[in-house]
Amino acid sequence: MKEKSVTSLDVAKLAGVSRPTVSLVLNNSKAVSLSEETKQKVRNAARVLGYKPNSAALMLRRGATNTVGLVITEGRSLQVDAFIPLLHYAIAGVMREAGYSLLLETFERKENQNPYADLVVSHRIDGLLVLSPSTDDEDLKALIEQDYPVVLIGSTGHPREHCVFTSTREGTGAAASHIMDLGHRNIGCIPFSPPGFAATDSRLRELREALSAAGIALQDDAVFHGDFSAESGHAATLALMKAKPDTTAIFAGNDTIALGVIGALTSLGLSVPGDVSVVGYDDLPFSGYIAPPLTTVGIDADKQGRMAAEMMVRRLRGEAIEETRLAMPSNFIARGSTGPVRR
Amino acid sequence: MKEKSVTSLDVAKLAGVSRPTVSLVLNNSKAVSLSEETKQKVRNAARVLGYKPNSAALMLRRGATNTVGLVITEGRSLQVDAFIPLLHYAIAGVMREAGYSLLLETFERKENQNPYADLVVSHRIDGLLVLSPSTDDEDLKALIEQDYPVVLIGSTGHPREHCVFTSTREGTGAAASHIMDLGHRNIGCIPFSPPGFAATDSRLRELREALSAAGIALQDDAVFHGDFSAESGHAATLALMKAKPDTTAIFAGNDTIALGVIGALTSLGLSVPGDVSVVGYDDLPFSGYIAPPLTTVGIDADKQGRMAAEMMVRRLRGEAIEETRLAMPSNFIARGSTGPVRR
Repeated sequence: MKEKSVTSLDVAKLAGVSRPTVSLVLNNSKAVSLSEETKQKVRNAARVLGYKPNSAALMLRRGATNTVGLVITEGRSLQVDAFIPLLHYAIAGVMREAGYSLLLETFERKENQNPYADLVVSHRIDGLLVLSPSTDDEDLKALIEQDYPVVLIGSTGHPREHCVFTSTREGTGAAASHIMDLGHRNIGCIPFSPPGFAATDSRLRELREALSAAGIALQDDAVFHGDFSAESGHAATLALMKAKPDTTAIFAGNDTIALGVIGALTSLGLSVPGDVSVVGYDDLPFSGYIAPPLTTVGIDADKQGRMAAEMMVRRLRGEAIEETRLAMPSNFIARGSTGPVRR
Repeated sequence: MKEKSVTSLDVAKLAGVSRPTVSLVLNNSKAVSLSEETKQKVRNAARVLGYKPNSAALMLRRGATNTVGLVITEGRSLQVDAFIPLLHYAIAGVMREAGYSLLLETFERKENQNPYADLVVSHRIDGLLVLSPSTDDEDLKALIEQDYPVVLIGSTGHPREHCVFTSTREGTGAAASHIMDLGHRNIGCIPFSPPGFAATDSRLRELREALSAAGIALQDDAVFHGDFSAESGHAATLALMKAKPDTTAIFAGNDTIALGVIGALTSLGLSVPGDVSVVGYDDLPFSGYIAPPLTTVGIDADKQGRMAAEMMVRRLRGEAIEETRLAMPSNFIARGSTGPVRR
């Protein structure tokens, strides 16, 4: 691997600074005050050379912090997506029982060059849990290849990853069958994020495949991407119903978006499920108790969080892990928000 | 103060162990394995003697971690209460910008003897943010009296506390006026937690006062306590409408509970607001986009989190803080879930 031959001395030379300065900058040291210009020079040089922190150095002080990092890659989704706190709570419980604290790191994609470097290199954590990793996250893949204790909630597809991912195919397939059996043919979809998010793209693909197996096409112009929130589901539904007023069933990317879908349909004078059926995703704690109770594809967030946390604890204890890629089933739940197509 | 004269030697003598053992147990050290029996003996002795960790020792290594602890006192509410992630996200943002990491600690009241001891004494944090502190939390008051950098989101009423609390009186008063102006006289209430939670008790008291100022009594048997979740709001509403079928307006303790209130009323064949008006609390991100859009008392969670985090950063930097108790206003928002009393 090319990266392994690059040292901090190479970075220092290219940046025109001393080797300790490279270390200070890349470790985000707060002990010494460095100019922004110097920091930028070092970071640019490290990026150009593809310099990665030495894995032996990473190992050296491992295991001393009794703290595990939890990285939430789309931080802003924490504000609106109720699935994340469920996972977080489950993870915190397992970690506490095992004697570990949880260090939270939220960031936005694209905001940082390497969101893990600070946590890992500064030796504040023994291991890293990453929620909803992106498949094109090279920094994360580099950590995985260094055998740093990473456990993913989700998957990057890397063969050496340790992860607990959701197997969405069964749940999505059952939801599609349910909607088709009720006679719906004009179907809209509001994915939970803009395109490019791995889980969004794969769920949309699976929904398309399930529908097309029954001869129903999910038209491109019946897909309006949401952005985690009820507000985005509300806006996307107004746009969808304007573009495709004959829509009789909507797949929402998560249950929070479904709240906004039902709100928007109601504001248009349409009843759910009388005029339009709505299917959510996640089975959040509120979903069975709203009006109407939400038909949804459930994922057991508590179990997924616990499984990921337990895998991390086993890694940190040096226990052998035979199954490094665990699949969580998804589970279709029919409730009151879906009904027969209107005649 | 009696506590100050008690030393770890006193605890060691009473427990029949060595002084270092006391330190290991009370610091929750993971370096050495001690029997549960020994740990219990030490903890009991410390409790009996009212022993508190020495504040000088606490000071000694302060400022070295660049990490701030965030304690969520009712951990399980994280699973269902969307207000907490909003605060958490705002706090994490300010802390990250200021160069601090956030260590999350969730616990259930009564579960631990002193939930702060481990975080504080083990020197893993420089300061402590506590969400929804309880007024009878003596361990927290002891930290405040030792001038440990604590910032509360909420209030214990301690004169020396640093806090950002919500001033609920205006918002609750405006909501009560709104409901009375619409002609409602038979009013129910579903507080967001069981009795004993400081904010629950004070909000209920304020609602009673606002209603009684207009000559309306909120009957004890029209109050059914929820438990943070939509599920609890659903169940409490069924119980309320059974006990008081002439109820025409319901105050829900939070917007998540309000989801369940609307769901339960709808399941009873009642319309909102045609038959029963519903008022929420918090103004969560989804609240303006559901069916019907929710009338609620808003608190700016983002601002409250930021203010608390900024106060913490200023404390850690040693800056003078003139206003140590900041009040966040609450803000009544009328939307579609409230309407005139049915005739």
